[in-house]
Amino acid sequence: MSIPVAIIGASGFTGLELIKILIHHPNFKISYIATSSGEESVSALHPSLTAMIEFDVKKADAKVVAQKAKLAFLALPHKASMGFAKELLDLGVKVVDLSADYRLELETYERHYCPHEDKAHLESAVYGLPELYKEEIKRSDLVANPGCYPTAALLALLPFTPYIDANYPIFIDAKSGVSGAGKKCINNTHFVTINENIFAYNPMAHRHEPEIAEKLQKSSGKSFDITFVPHLLPITRGELVDSYLVLKEEIDPLLVLKAYYQNAPFIRVFENPVSVKNCSGTNFCDIFAKREGKKLYLNSAIDNLLRGASSQAVVNANLMFGFDEGLGIPTIPYTP
Amino acid sequence: MSIPVAIIGASGFTGLELIKILIHHPNFKISYIATSSGEESVSALHPSLTAMIEFDVKKADAKVVAQKAKLAFLALPHKASMGFAKELLDLGVKVVDLSADYRLELETYERHYCPHEDKAHLESAVYGLPELYKEEIKRSDLVANPGCYPTAALLALLPFTPYIDANYPIFIDAKSGVSGAGKKCINNTHFVTINENIFAYNPMAHRHEPEIAEKLQKSSGKSFDITFVPHLLPITRGELVDSYLVLKEEIDPLLVLKAYYQNAPFIRVFENPVSVKNCSGTNFCDIFAKREGKKLYLNSAIDNLLRGASSQAVVNANLMFGFDEGLGIPTIPYTP
Amino acid sequence: MSIPVAIIGASGFTGLELIKILIHHPNFKISYIATSSGEESVSALHPSLTAMIEFDVKKADAKVVAQKAKLAFLALPHKASMGFAKELLDLGVKVVDLSADYRLELETYERHYCPHEDKAHLESAVYGLPELYKEEIKRSDLVANPGCYPTAALLALLPFTPYIDANYPIFIDAKSGVSGAGKKCINNTHFVTINENIFAYNPMAHRHEPEIAEKLQKSSGKSFDITFVPHLLPITRGELVDSYLVLKEEIDPLLVLKAYYQNAPFIRVFENPVSVKNCSGTNFCDIFAKREGKKLYLNSAIDNLLRGASSQAVVNANLMFGFDEGLGIPTIPYTP
Amino acid sequence: MSIPVAIIGASGFTGLELIKILIHHPNFKISYIATSSGEESVSALHPSLTAMIEFDVKKADAKVVAQKAKLAFLALPHKASMGFAKELLDLGVKVVDLSADYRLELETYERHYCPHEDKAHLESAVYGLPELYKEEIKRSDLVANPGCYPTAALLALLPFTPYIDANYPIFIDAKSGVSGAGKKCINNTHFVTINENIFAYNPMAHRHEPEIAEKLQKSSGKSFDITFVPHLLPITRGELVDSYLVLKEEIDPLLVLKAYYQNAPFIRVFENPVSVKNCSGTNFCDIFAKREGKKLYLNSAIDNLLRGASSQAVVNANLMFGFDEGLGIPTIPYTP
Repeated sequence: MSIPVAIIGASGFTGLELIKILIHHPNFKISYIATSSGEESVSALHPSLTAMIEFDVKKADAKVVAQKAKLAFLALPHKASMGFAKELLDLGVKVVDLSADYRLELETYERHYCPHEDKAHLESAVYGLPELYKEEIKRSDLVANPGCYPTAALLALLPFTPYIDANYPIFIDAKSGVSGAGKKCINNTHFVTINENIFAYNPMAHRHEPEIAEKLQKSSGKSFDITFVPHLLPITRGELVDSYLVLKEEIDPLLVLKAYYQNAPFIRVFENPVSVKNCSGTNFCDIFAKREGKKLYLNSAIDNLLRGASSQAVVNANLMFGFDEGLGIPTIPYTP
Repeated sequence: MSIPVAIIGASGFTGLELIKILIHHPNFKISYIATSSGEESVSALHPSLTAMIEFDVKKADAKVVAQKAKLAFLALPHKASMGFAKELLDLGVKVVDLSADYRLELETYERHYCPHEDKAHLESAVYGLPELYKEEIKRSDLVANPGCYPTAALLALLPFTPYIDANYPIFIDAKSGVSGAGKKCINNTHFVTINENIFAYNPMAHRHEPEIAEKLQKSSGKSFDITFVPHLLPITRGELVDSYLVLKEEIDPLLVLKAYYQNAPFIRVFENPVSVKNCSGTNFCDIFAKREGKKLYLNSAIDNLLRGASSQAVVNANLMFGFDEGLGIPTIPYTP
Repeated sequence: MSIPVAIIGASGFTGLELIKILIHHPNFKISYIATSSGEESVSALHPSLTAMIEFDVKKADAKVVAQKAKLAFLALPHKASMGFAKELLDLGVKVVDLSADYRLELETYERHYCPHEDKAHLESAVYGLPELYKEEIKRSDLVANPGCYPTAALLALLPFTPYIDANYPIFIDAKSGVSGAGKKCINNTHFVTINENIFAYNPMAHRHEPEIAEKLQKSSGKSFDITFVPHLLPITRGELVDSYLVLKEEIDPLLVLKAYYQNAPFIRVFENPVSVKNCSGTNFCDIFAKREGKKLYLNSAIDNLLRGASSQAVVNANLMFGFDEGLGIPTIPYTP
Repeated sequence: MSIPVAIIGASGFTGLELIKILIHHPNFKISYIATSSGEESVSALHPSLTAMIEFDVKKADAKVVAQKAKLAFLALPHKASMGFAKELLDLGVKVVDLSADYRLELETYERHYCPHEDKAHLESAVYGLPELYKEEIKRSDLVANPGCYPTAALLALLPFTPYIDANYPIFIDAKSGVSGAGKKCINNTHFVTINENIFAYNPMAHRHEPEIAEKLQKSSGKSFDITFVPHLLPITRGELVDSYLVLKEEIDPLLVLKAYYQNAPFIRVFENPVSVKNCSGTNFCDIFAKREGKKLYLNSAIDNLLRGASSQAVVNANLMFGFDEGLGIPTIPYTP
């Protein structure tokens, strides 16, 4: 079997990761690659892929995508994404959208981003965190791939929602590699700025904060007070999320994690603090937890470009076509 | 004026920093340098100082120190330090001790380290955080230089003790460069382990947690519930400390900081998140704060080897001899 | 088909890379893993492989290897390797040896390493550079996997041996990531030593210099005067080799490269300087060349742990069993 | 004594370094700071200098400079620099120009850069390598500060010009930290591009090649065939230059270096390969050399922003005003 798929927005880091995964995917076959400008080859765009793929990159055209592909991965900026997704869906192409455009409830979205231009499809979009919505993803034509920080934060927090004391805030201190800031050349991504450095950005004001809060609330029925502070790290890939909260009772957090994730192939529960390096290059989310009295410390790590974007997108695509969720998904880390 | 001073434990990173500061100090003059083995030259020990200082390194001998120096900086491991400090103090040499041996109350020390062997001097030791104990330091013969994490954490937290709601825990998420782990070659300091990586270590169990708690308590008269999680970062120097807590009232945190530190020459209050790089190479502690409702986020950065160790030690020595606290203290950062 | 293979010396970086490649190899199956101490699990040894492989690690025993495996990869220190290889070969196990023990002529070996203890097998060992000795490797039971620097240097130099003016020295300036220095915790691999640094080591005295000279001489029949200076770089993996030499005539170096490597699946000739990052994670050797008058600049890059060790070892094993050389070999780089 | 000086072009890295040095210089006093846009404060431009200097940054105006300063440091792009220098010189202001505009003979300059617009002053400009032209610098009103690569290359090569066999090419393999590429945000300075990477750029075509060749020729009267290949390294500051050449006779290279530099306060000759880290933060040029037969390996390191730009500029200014060349010049490295 070979399902033709399109990658729209192939010039960035998540686009590159999609290509890398799909080159060898057993059931998907890249049939179309587009960037905003088009008219180059994949190996001009990503010289590291020289000799691995020869393909003309086009300027994206929804009608051509509909002729050539059954599913499209959209690695576009938010707002641009919903315009294109709408067209594709109306033409019968399934969509995994890596932008924020279909992740949030309308009201949350419009408060933190911009007016929504595809309310019809927004209603039916499924939030693509497979550990939470696997069955819904299987039946969906439009999956909103989660943000990288929400992926790592939610996978650590979800098992504990029955035990969290909601009278206390949940503080999330997150750290991301520079690839999370994208390929754009700006002061924060200049080597000299971030090398031998670390700093917080958008503290208590990052758009991933409402995404985490909304998904926790929707899945548990309870409201939690989330404070989120992300940091930029002098590493290329990898993301570490530390969550601090107070419990209602003195549970064993590792037991809770292991029970909750006993059938989750892409969660690894560790008895010691996790390392971003151990999961870089894979779709794994590694989680550690420790309790002191009623205070709980959660410690989760992912590859921001894979579990935080492109490999999770392919897991979602696998599910949407009835394949095993792990088909063609990277599991061998880049260590050492 | 030229006060002769000794550096005991010159082979490590803090020893190197002490030499670097004291080479050009206007009022102190290095008169003795010792390591555990002795019998080499400073430039063999630290080739970067070639042509800057010629000096024979000795095996430490308290009696010789007493003949040669009026003050000794001890950059020794804890336990080793108290043995040597005791001898020096009895011989009339002032001591700035960079180890943990005189930082804590007896009971706290013995619970977290080992039995104390110099209880007499422990009683009179002053905790060398100049912003808190400047007058006491001036009158002291034995100053216990604070730990690096407590320095950055306390300088951010102290101004807020009147406003903190002690019914909520204070969560401290700290990040340190590898020089904080010392010069020993172990798995955690291997380049391949920490490059492209970040991980927590000793979460909720680091010895700097009781140091922070005890000093907050002693200085404010109130008890706070501190949770401390340090991380290792792939940078050489610099330390970022993020503290999360709940206030009793909705104060303006930048105003509180500016008022508290209006006469503190080594505190810089920033309106945006701080960067470790901006203070690396200096004795500054840079602080930023932000409030959302009653939740407070504190963000402080220091150079772990300078403000977190050696330059703070020289500030203390300046005060102990009645000099201006800023004399010869590095203030020009290593940026870019 | 499933050939059982053993990995002897699994604790280091090349051992880890061998496991990573062989986990998913279509025709080889790991049947035995040994370290010098034994008695642990693979995931204790390499936590990044948690959930990917469960296997008891043994203390190496040649007789057990002979029962369990048809080929053994030896990732042992030189000298230890030849003792073990000899036993295995006498028991009928094919060997790919990643140490230096079978790479050199007897006389060269003993001058640069130590007395040889397996002269019988040394005679029949094949130097495992597939671009040079593919047919010999196919027929061999003992392949000596090349050193990392010689791999990158030879692949750049070999096409030019007919054109080099041997009256001029060939200067090779090589740069390697820290993983090339191994997992041992020593001053040179301490993060603080090499971060924000670069330095040469063993200039004009590295053991890879005679390996390069001997192989150039053997394959071309001509003698070249090689000067080799390696450097340590603050990166984990990747190796860049720059060679400077004088030609007899003004050839087009890119044409020479393309012609020589037209059928080489793991050589990529670039029109611009190569980047180690573009081939990290793969078995590719990327090569660029530029000429100015009769002076030639060669610029080659490999992943030191893969093309410079473990993936090249599996290519050799593929050939020894008559498989396609590219079977199961990593080709998707770790970029970005 | 306090000579007022101006810094023109203060927004870049060399501008920052000039400010850092001049803040505490005993005989110079910053009296004017300009950038291309003006209208900000120094601490807005360089937040790391907060609390260290308060100064209004202006849009550069030569007439105002002439009223306010006796010497101007020009840290401007080439071409822009000669326009401004000309005006200043005509108004009687001494100039240290950090651009390339006055470094080369007219013909060399115009072949590699652009038409020269200040031929009159070009004639009298002195090349500001103090080890070579100290006396000329003392008498000059216009000093052309050398390029970073030429500084490190020439300081290694100059002592050997009597011994070099000019029938063989000199190959120079240079490696620079990213600060050498400037503050502009471009693909090569993006963290993700250069982290875990190294690559050559402009091989055999960099503009510093003719600068090295011309200065060697002018100072020795002999013509040498120079091939220069620079590389970008994943470090912020520091530069390593390796030169490979053939000698006419078998001299002792360390003796030659020590004799040549016996009175040079900013040259350190090492018996082992040098490290960029050992001289980062200082004006030192560290040099090592090794000979094998008639082949010579030279290995020199500098801080590209200091010895390769700003501290060398201040040394030149010291000489131009009759001060000791070392006055206020940084000599304590940033190690560890």
